[in-house]
Amino acid sequence: MKDLIKGAYEEGIKFADEGVVADYIPELAKEDKSKAGVVLINKDGDIFEAGEVEKTFSIQSIVKVVAYLVALEEIDPERISEAIGVKPTALPFNSVLDVELGGGKPRNPYVNAGAMAVTGLLYEKFGDDTLDLVLNKVRDLADRDSIEVSESIYESERDTAFNNRAIFYMMVARGVFNEDMPVDKVANMYFRNCSILVNAKDLARISSVIANDGLDVVSGKRKFDEKYGRTLRTVMAMCGMYDNSGEFALKVGLPAKSGVGGGIISASPEGIGIGTYCPGLDEAGNSLVGQKMLEIITDELDLYIY
Amino acid sequence: MKDLIKGAYEEGIKFADEGVVADYIPELAKEDKSKAGVVLINKDGDIFEAGEVEKTFSIQSIVKVVAYLVALEEIDPERISEAIGVKPTALPFNSVLDVELGGGKPRNPYVNAGAMAVTGLLYEKFGDDTLDLVLNKVRDLADRDSIEVSESIYESERDTAFNNRAIFYMMVARGVFNEDMPVDKVANMYFRNCSILVNAKDLARISSVIANDGLDVVSGKRKFDEKYGRTLRTVMAMCGMYDNSGEFALKVGLPAKSGVGGGIISASPEGIGIGTYCPGLDEAGNSLVGQKMLEIITDELDLYIY
Amino acid sequence: MKDLIKGAYEEGIKFADEGVVADYIPELAKEDKSKAGVVLINKDGDIFEAGEVEKTFSIQSIVKVVAYLVALEEIDPERISEAIGVKPTALPFNSVLDVELGGGKPRNPYVNAGAMAVTGLLYEKFGDDTLDLVLNKVRDLADRDSIEVSESIYESERDTAFNNRAIFYMMVARGVFNEDMPVDKVANMYFRNCSILVNAKDLARISSVIANDGLDVVSGKRKFDEKYGRTLRTVMAMCGMYDNSGEFALKVGLPAKSGVGGGIISASPEGIGIGTYCPGLDEAGNSLVGQKMLEIITDELDLYIY
Amino acid sequence: MKDLIKGAYEEGIKFADEGVVADYIPELAKEDKSKAGVVLINKDGDIFEAGEVEKTFSIQSIVKVVAYLVALEEIDPERISEAIGVKPTALPFNSVLDVELGGGKPRNPYVNAGAMAVTGLLYEKFGDDTLDLVLNKVRDLADRDSIEVSESIYESERDTAFNNRAIFYMMVARGVFNEDMPVDKVANMYFRNCSILVNAKDLARISSVIANDGLDVVSGKRKFDEKYGRTLRTVMAMCGMYDNSGEFALKVGLPAKSGVGGGIISASPEGIGIGTYCPGLDEAGNSLVGQKMLEIITDELDLYIY
Repeated sequence: MKDLIKGAYEEGIKFADEGVVADYIPELAKEDKSKAGVVLINKDGDIFEAGEVEKTFSIQSIVKVVAYLVALEEIDPERISEAIGVKPTALPFNSVLDVELGGGKPRNPYVNAGAMAVTGLLYEKFGDDTLDLVLNKVRDLADRDSIEVSESIYESERDTAFNNRAIFYMMVARGVFNEDMPVDKVANMYFRNCSILVNAKDLARISSVIANDGLDVVSGKRKFDEKYGRTLRTVMAMCGMYDNSGEFALKVGLPAKSGVGGGIISASPEGIGIGTYCPGLDEAGNSLVGQKMLEIITDELDLYIY
Repeated sequence: MKDLIKGAYEEGIKFADEGVVADYIPELAKEDKSKAGVVLINKDGDIFEAGEVEKTFSIQSIVKVVAYLVALEEIDPERISEAIGVKPTALPFNSVLDVELGGGKPRNPYVNAGAMAVTGLLYEKFGDDTLDLVLNKVRDLADRDSIEVSESIYESERDTAFNNRAIFYMMVARGVFNEDMPVDKVANMYFRNCSILVNAKDLARISSVIANDGLDVVSGKRKFDEKYGRTLRTVMAMCGMYDNSGEFALKVGLPAKSGVGGGIISASPEGIGIGTYCPGLDEAGNSLVGQKMLEIITDELDLYIY
Repeated sequence: MKDLIKGAYEEGIKFADEGVVADYIPELAKEDKSKAGVVLINKDGDIFEAGEVEKTFSIQSIVKVVAYLVALEEIDPERISEAIGVKPTALPFNSVLDVELGGGKPRNPYVNAGAMAVTGLLYEKFGDDTLDLVLNKVRDLADRDSIEVSESIYESERDTAFNNRAIFYMMVARGVFNEDMPVDKVANMYFRNCSILVNAKDLARISSVIANDGLDVVSGKRKFDEKYGRTLRTVMAMCGMYDNSGEFALKVGLPAKSGVGGGIISASPEGIGIGTYCPGLDEAGNSLVGQKMLEIITDELDLYIY
Repeated sequence: MKDLIKGAYEEGIKFADEGVVADYIPELAKEDKSKAGVVLINKDGDIFEAGEVEKTFSIQSIVKVVAYLVALEEIDPERISEAIGVKPTALPFNSVLDVELGGGKPRNPYVNAGAMAVTGLLYEKFGDDTLDLVLNKVRDLADRDSIEVSESIYESERDTAFNNRAIFYMMVARGVFNEDMPVDKVANMYFRNCSILVNAKDLARISSVIANDGLDVVSGKRKFDEKYGRTLRTVMAMCGMYDNSGEFALKVGLPAKSGVGGGIISASPEGIGIGTYCPGLDEAGNSLVGQKMLEIITDELDLYIY
């Protein structure tokens, strides 16, 4: 396994030049696309790694999985399904049109509309206490209390996220949320969640817990009720890789979620969790080297679920 | 002429029951749809009226014409045409889709997106002083200093205008406005303008000034440079009656602008201005009795421009 | 007047290089964009001309006005308004999306969907006899029996008009037409109408008849009932210049209809008809030199209707 | 296993009343929604069944999987991926808008646009011989030579399929296919394929072959190269249940494909194939009882792939 991970890293990094670093906020544009890392945790809790596995980067859309988990744990399922669909979409993750075509109801929790709706559902219940809920969950799943938000990335996100605010106001205008929803404040909570700094090891730990239905096989602790594991993996498989979820399913065939910070989490229902990092993205916004490494690993270990 | 106006009123009011009062904000739903009024000012400044011509109601979208005039007077024409189109549209005046299809640029100054863009352009130049610019212009055109904003309508507008805020954020997200545009504040200025209380007489005075290329034939004072008259009338003719501008052109054939408060202004290039009021609306949001009265008047006076 | 027309021609032709010849079918791409012509007919039937006024070119979308006239004369008005709107649109004339958003009902008779719907309405009544109806009307309005269809242009149109066929099938699928409508055959009738060869003189004659409510002031003959004149001019004013009808209204201010063959007809309600030709188009598909010439003429003669 | 299938049938049929029989063509509306059947074939080729397993019905959209298999076998993969995506979509299977938003390229082979594109790709290579290619493949996979097309259903399909023809013309207009594609003829080939009459047993045999990567475990014969199995199952999992593929993944968790005739095929990567039938559909067009039976079976056998 050690050789496999090393080999996947060495093969994957060859494609580092082909990726493009996200530049919609200045902070992201500074990332070095020649850095990559991969960590695999098997079902016995053994950890295998290669590359830069402690370098931190912003979690970005991967946090949508953690936020969705918090919602599954805390919010009435009927309210969740009233407010958010579980439909994969062929339209971009930030599409205003897709929200409009869906009558204001986000297609799924992993498009931007859906992730803001998740934050909105939490706010309905927890109010201002929503602020650290997801951050604490990330810390818990990754088993690292020192995980923090990058204030500089958060500032950048907040200042440029006009499209996201437009989407949130559309959801209120179409009745998904009540008129007393403080859109700007709750949107900012979402942007803050996107700015959490993690490393490839953290992502592998999170992946491993999801792969094992809530059991952290490294620490031996249960992190969430086992019934949520399958739901998390299913929605990741259907909607996790933006509008390239279908292409990814054909190539890699694992439940996964990517972020434009360069990370990918990947959770095999056989109990294997994989975290990858490399900030160069493909045209759909998924880490290019990350996908290559996953392709090699799943092929070698025959993890393909379909 | 006196008999014509009286006859138009008596004929038009018969249709009062068929209209539907706007109910998107509670304040509007209280209006009494059996009330109507019509005022015509000929090119000599003679005033003819029938019905309830001093009853006030909110100006709503009619204010878009006045705001556009202020923009024409104050803002560089290139900046205006960069930010706002002059394209009539078959989509509803509050359509998010239409803004998206136009790449964030409003189709014309009389859809909601366009009216907010006008307010944004004024804010770019005047900052907080934008607040009373349009109100003062309404007072000036109508020659009535006691015209005020209805605070209760303004509150209602502001609280329910989530779709408008979504549209404004889309314009910022797509670069029509800079990222330092204070969207909520400027949107509120627009909602406040919509809440200006006018009566049918005021509307006739405004119409008359537009019909006479800026000259107020009642007071003899010039209210704006004559070069703006044609532009105002042309855009009213093309885009003034929401997505029913084509149907209205066939039936009435005059440059006009309606508001969901029940008012319509109508400006003949022959120097005749007409203001009408009746809060019952047709399915496109235009005053039903108002249109009937205009149809009778333009037919009788042969004002049809086409 | 003679000098005005000559001057407009000389001024307009300076812009000939800036236009782009339509190239969606090979036959159109062959046109010489340095050729232009303009013909004005005043209300006394006097004819003034400059440039290449006998050079023929394909009528293209201008034929939509003539076809609409035939429909107004022959088809029950309720059936017309059931099948075709009179709404100007900000979307392109060949937009599938616009037909979908309109529920299958074309926005107006001058987008492609609407023109095919007009042909479909005629086919419902006249069957195969529809074939020459519009051609004969063009001959009658232009007072030239030798007007013919260009078979080579017709072949080209027919072979490339897949988008138009898609739109026609959408109209049948959404119930605007019955399921026994022979879509390909009727679409071909429309393409054939677009391939009618006219010259600037013909266009001026057609314009003049429309300007004079059906009276041909040159021959003294009545060509259609006077009641249709205003309808034709109104819909031209609202929808005649593709999605640039608003911009054209501001610049030229006359009811007009253009075709990608390079022609424009223009009908002043004061009884003046103008036909122009120059195949170089602007980005909206309207003849660039044609618009320039019209701008000069309407400015000089103060024909602006608004 | 025998009891499981019997139990699933008995439990599922209780929901028969809640389904709605498809009525877009008269032939389908005649189906009796109280009839249901289920057949499971395990990886040893043992067959278990309950209910009406020999009653025939039209295969409808399930044939898209077989047609896609023929394309995978016969057409250059680059041409396939140039012409057809593998993106799940949240828009309806017959959406014109989705084709337009995708630039004419169908989102995936299981929306109508994609299935017609598959037929078009086959026609490009095989011409008129395309006619029986898919029918013969259905016969081969189901191991029943007597499978035939229902001429009456085919006639109905063909006569009402105007929306499908619109979509096909859009694909030609946007360059997915050449201009010499005979749209009506090839569309008819697709409609004919939808009209193939199968029974639940046939569907189980087809499912079993797909579940076993091309090996027919009942007859012991290889039906297609093993490399296509995973692709077929992946695209079924992502896109097989119309725009409810996400909801189905959460509930049933198996690669599957439904048809509005009432059938569903379902292929577990563990080598189990299941065919179900019951013509009452849910709001997304998927057999209601069929889904219930699959839910019980996959739950009991723990076949959930995620």
